[in-house]
Amino acid sequence: MGEDVYVVGIDMIKFGRFPNKSLAELGSEAALLALDDAGLRIQDIEAMWCGNLMQANNMVGQQILQLIGQTGIPVVNCANACATGATAFRDAWLSIKAGVYDVVLAVGVEQMGKGLLGGAGGGRGISKEGLTGSMTMPAVFAEAGMEHARKYGTTFEQFAKVSVKNHHHSTLNPKAMYQIETPLDQVMNAEMISYPNTKLMCSVNVDGSAAAVLVSAKKAKQLGMKRAVKVRASILTSDPWQERDLVMPDVNSCTRLAAKKAYEMAGVGASDIDLVELHDCFATAEILHYENLGLCKDGEAGRMIDAGESALGGRIPVNVSGGLLSKGHPLGATGIANIYEVSTHLRGEAGKRQVEGAKLGMTHVIGLGSACAIHILEKAA
Amino acid sequence: MGEDVYVVGIDMIKFGRFPNKSLAELGSEAALLALDDAGLRIQDIEAMWCGNLMQANNMVGQQILQLIGQTGIPVVNCANACATGATAFRDAWLSIKAGVYDVVLAVGVEQMGKGLLGGAGGGRGISKEGLTGSMTMPAVFAEAGMEHARKYGTTFEQFAKVSVKNHHHSTLNPKAMYQIETPLDQVMNAEMISYPNTKLMCSVNVDGSAAAVLVSAKKAKQLGMKRAVKVRASILTSDPWQERDLVMPDVNSCTRLAAKKAYEMAGVGASDIDLVELHDCFATAEILHYENLGLCKDGEAGRMIDAGESALGGRIPVNVSGGLLSKGHPLGATGIANIYEVSTHLRGEAGKRQVEGAKLGMTHVIGLGSACAIHILEKAA
Repeated sequence: MGEDVYVVGIDMIKFGRFPNKSLAELGSEAALLALDDAGLRIQDIEAMWCGNLMQANNMVGQQILQLIGQTGIPVVNCANACATGATAFRDAWLSIKAGVYDVVLAVGVEQMGKGLLGGAGGGRGISKEGLTGSMTMPAVFAEAGMEHARKYGTTFEQFAKVSVKNHHHSTLNPKAMYQIETPLDQVMNAEMISYPNTKLMCSVNVDGSAAAVLVSAKKAKQLGMKRAVKVRASILTSDPWQERDLVMPDVNSCTRLAAKKAYEMAGVGASDIDLVELHDCFATAEILHYENLGLCKDGEAGRMIDAGESALGGRIPVNVSGGLLSKGHPLGATGIANIYEVSTHLRGEAGKRQVEGAKLGMTHVIGLGSACAIHILEKAA
Repeated sequence: MGEDVYVVGIDMIKFGRFPNKSLAELGSEAALLALDDAGLRIQDIEAMWCGNLMQANNMVGQQILQLIGQTGIPVVNCANACATGATAFRDAWLSIKAGVYDVVLAVGVEQMGKGLLGGAGGGRGISKEGLTGSMTMPAVFAEAGMEHARKYGTTFEQFAKVSVKNHHHSTLNPKAMYQIETPLDQVMNAEMISYPNTKLMCSVNVDGSAAAVLVSAKKAKQLGMKRAVKVRASILTSDPWQERDLVMPDVNSCTRLAAKKAYEMAGVGASDIDLVELHDCFATAEILHYENLGLCKDGEAGRMIDAGESALGGRIPVNVSGGLLSKGHPLGATGIANIYEVSTHLRGEAGKRQVEGAKLGMTHVIGLGSACAIHILEKAA
């Protein structure tokens, strides 16, 4: 099925708040970093996909090229709520698979406001039975967590431990927004946003950008396979009407469908995966996704966090980057930033937070509205 | 280079003003028409690309599927100024070419306000040397026309004849917003918007939607080739820095680059093309594009319109649908509506406006900011 696709350059800026930079400036920084990482020039790029949510109608990709070099290449701007960056990456992947291009660039960039993640962006104006139309994001993910607690007895403390773990991971990641430990009592005693998620259990609104250079097998061989990462699966889903979770269709059914398809495409199972970057937009979400992605059986996510299985050094490290909870969550950039993190481990370049011997990794994002993207990536050489 | 791609279902709604319908409702109407045209059901569709500019961050594609059937398929929302619909079509084309899918849907939809096409949408916030950042659309295309007049002596009357021709064509197209003749004196004496374009020489702001079902060769054979249309070339460009037109880089250089690449990909020349739907957002623009697309030599566009060569029955009929000037220009829908028009002629189903014996057609859109998309389509059987 089409050509094999490799990532040969990938990078992100340190997430933060940059009110004095333009969106295009932020995006161009990541684009140049990724090109530099690949050892390529802007003239080598044959097409570009740009993921940005908040200014999706504003030709952001073209603006970036106006800053770093206009060569006349095709530029597509795409938006898919919190799956925006991953969607840009996937469209770029399709274009290489089609044999139409050998070298393409995917950029994800977002400039957020301050404060907590509200109902803005992907969820705006969407009317559907249930949750996402009428509730803010914190309420949506609080209710999802409480439904898990009702079914399986998951505790406030278990949810809070997700945040303790991810904040700890972020102390080892110089590109995370925060590098601070948040002990369990601090997480549990932080301002309550929507039970059971306190302020330290909500993702951090930051500005950020990430970019990847995707190439054909032919080009990857030319450039040298040593640091190349092979895309083993690229899956995007929306809400399935049949067999869907009525409480959280966007989050649960969408992710389960994507995970099933991703494992099928890659020809691997959850037990083969060495690390996962998943969509911890709230601490409760990470708990749900352990089960949605098959990292543990249904109902065992609470036990999994208690046992430290998802911590660095554990059975299946999750969000070693610090995750959305501490690295930060610039919506359009997150999907590619996750792929950067996994790629960095597969290359053995993750420094103090390296997952030793990582050969296969998974990234996951969900956007309410609905879009779930999963990528399975493999060390190429 | 990848799989051959065919259009087996394509349709559009009659363009108009639908303030009481939602954007998703408008989009779903075209999606259902295209599926019906293909003889397929929503369950047959494996992925969807949705082009919409004004609500690009609002998960429009998913909203459409919520109305007509949620099956969990990948949905990508994309935006590229006035090339938005064509960009969605092209991304869908890439996905078939990649061999990842056999049947995909591309939808373009837009809900516009009343009035003349202003600076909203794609041009917003874009800062570049020259025109598009600081001038409204009518001023941009007026200046481009005057530059043509300065170089080649093109007259007000010649520009006005474009509008007379396209309005005449639209009287033969039941899906056009207007079906009224506009004699030359009426066009020239209409309210002056920005010299030389009068109100009747500006595209009509309307709501609209169009959709296409794209399939692999294998699937096209299963469905029967009789009404299939083959995609011979699909090209998207942005501003080339080198050898670009300094007055209208978005419009002129972008289009010339795309035309060159499209003829190369299709392995044909301009003289092989039987009809063209091009981006007549203003009457002046159509004159420029005769030359940009190679339909005549530089400086001969005025003579070409005088001689009736671009009228139905002429050497190379242009905008037989009525064009943006009379059919209307719902930004995100226009790119796919153009492909519908050309496909309808290739299928021999264009009724009173049929270009007899049409075997090869071209569609062209440009979005300021910059994006030019050109497709070359061929009668399959």
